Amino acid sequence: MTARYLQTPIMHRVVEHNGIVYLGGVTADDESLDMEGQTRQVLSKIDGYLEQAGTGNTRLLTATIFLTDLTLKPAMDLVWKEWVGGCDLPTRATVGVADLGGKALVEIVITAAISSLPKS
Amino acid sequence: MTARYLQTPIMHRVVEHNGIVYLGGVTADDESLDMEGQTRQVLSKIDGYLEQAGTGNTRLLTATIFLTDLTLKPAMDLVWKEWVGGCDLPTRATVGVADLGGKALVEIVITAAISSLPKS
Amino acid sequence: MTARYLQTPIMHRVVEHNGIVYLGGVTADDESLDMEGQTRQVLSKIDGYLEQAGTGNTRLLTATIFLTDLTLKPAMDLVWKEWVGGCDLPTRATVGVADLGGKALVEIVITAAISSLPKS
Repeated sequence: MTARYLQTPIMHRVVEHNGIVYLGGVTADDESLDMEGQTRQVLSKIDGYLEQAGTGNTRLLTATIFLTDLTLKPAMDLVWKEWVGGCDLPTRATVGVADLGGKALVEIVITAAISSLPKS
Repeated sequence: MTARYLQTPIMHRVVEHNGIVYLGGVTADDESLDMEGQTRQVLSKIDGYLEQAGTGNTRLLTATIFLTDLTLKPAMDLVWKEWVGGCDLPTRATVGVADLGGKALVEIVITAAISSLPKS
Repeated sequence: MTARYLQTPIMHRVVEHNGIVYLGGVTADDESLDMEGQTRQVLSKIDGYLEQAGTGNTRLLTATIFLTDLTLKPAMDLVWKEWVGGCDLPTRATVGVADLGGKALVEIVITAAISSLPKS
């Protein structure tokens, strides 16, 4: 079964299939913020999207983080570490890219599990 | 079970595992085309790859779209919206990158579901 | 069930959920190496991560390869082809990006299957 949430003209913000939740790329609403501020907004939006699908940031599987300026990675990491806490961290890839649109400094793509399956 | 289709020297164009279809990155065959034309070619090739695995663009889960010039995003979006239609949209991340090889303007990576599983 | 291996301050290098193994982005430890050398180091590290999760490079599902200089793709491909061998190739997307941190020339993100499921 596939469930889709929060439709925009070009995507669903959240798609769930067979126990995995896929989120679209998330950027900050206020692009005048610095890296720390933008990252906080992005992760707060991700919290909302995960909740929409009945999961949360303790069930993360993967994160792909695009930054327009890798020298700002430490500011992003600071907020990231706070958010993920000390356990159940996902895998992560962080890539410096040319352009995320407007003044976006960071875009994050997340996948998460809905719930634990019976142990095999 | 894993099924693999359309082998090239470096990849399979299509891999299916446990009900999920993964496509490799798709660029246009004719890179002299503009963004609209390249996007049409890319999505047409994706239709063929999805069909190869027994699915189609009403079962999309995720799309990752790389563009070499984000100012051309509206032209890509125009063709994208036509292609996905009004429902069952996947999640999407769109990222401006430095180079997709040759004169490629757009590269799209898709995942899709094979079929609906019994509702839980 | 979700299993997580090799924790760093910001991620787990390996996460397994429901039979799929997700690896974080892998770069070379010695960034003074050329593309061929860095790719060898990356794939060797990936071998270790896959083994940690009880799988290997004959069960690859997808590869996303980020390069800071696409003109060096042939050198990467040479090592890649050796590594994947002639069958059971994953899907692949190769993207030229602005910056992978330090002197990293290549970063690879892999997903793989743990084992074959019963045929349906």
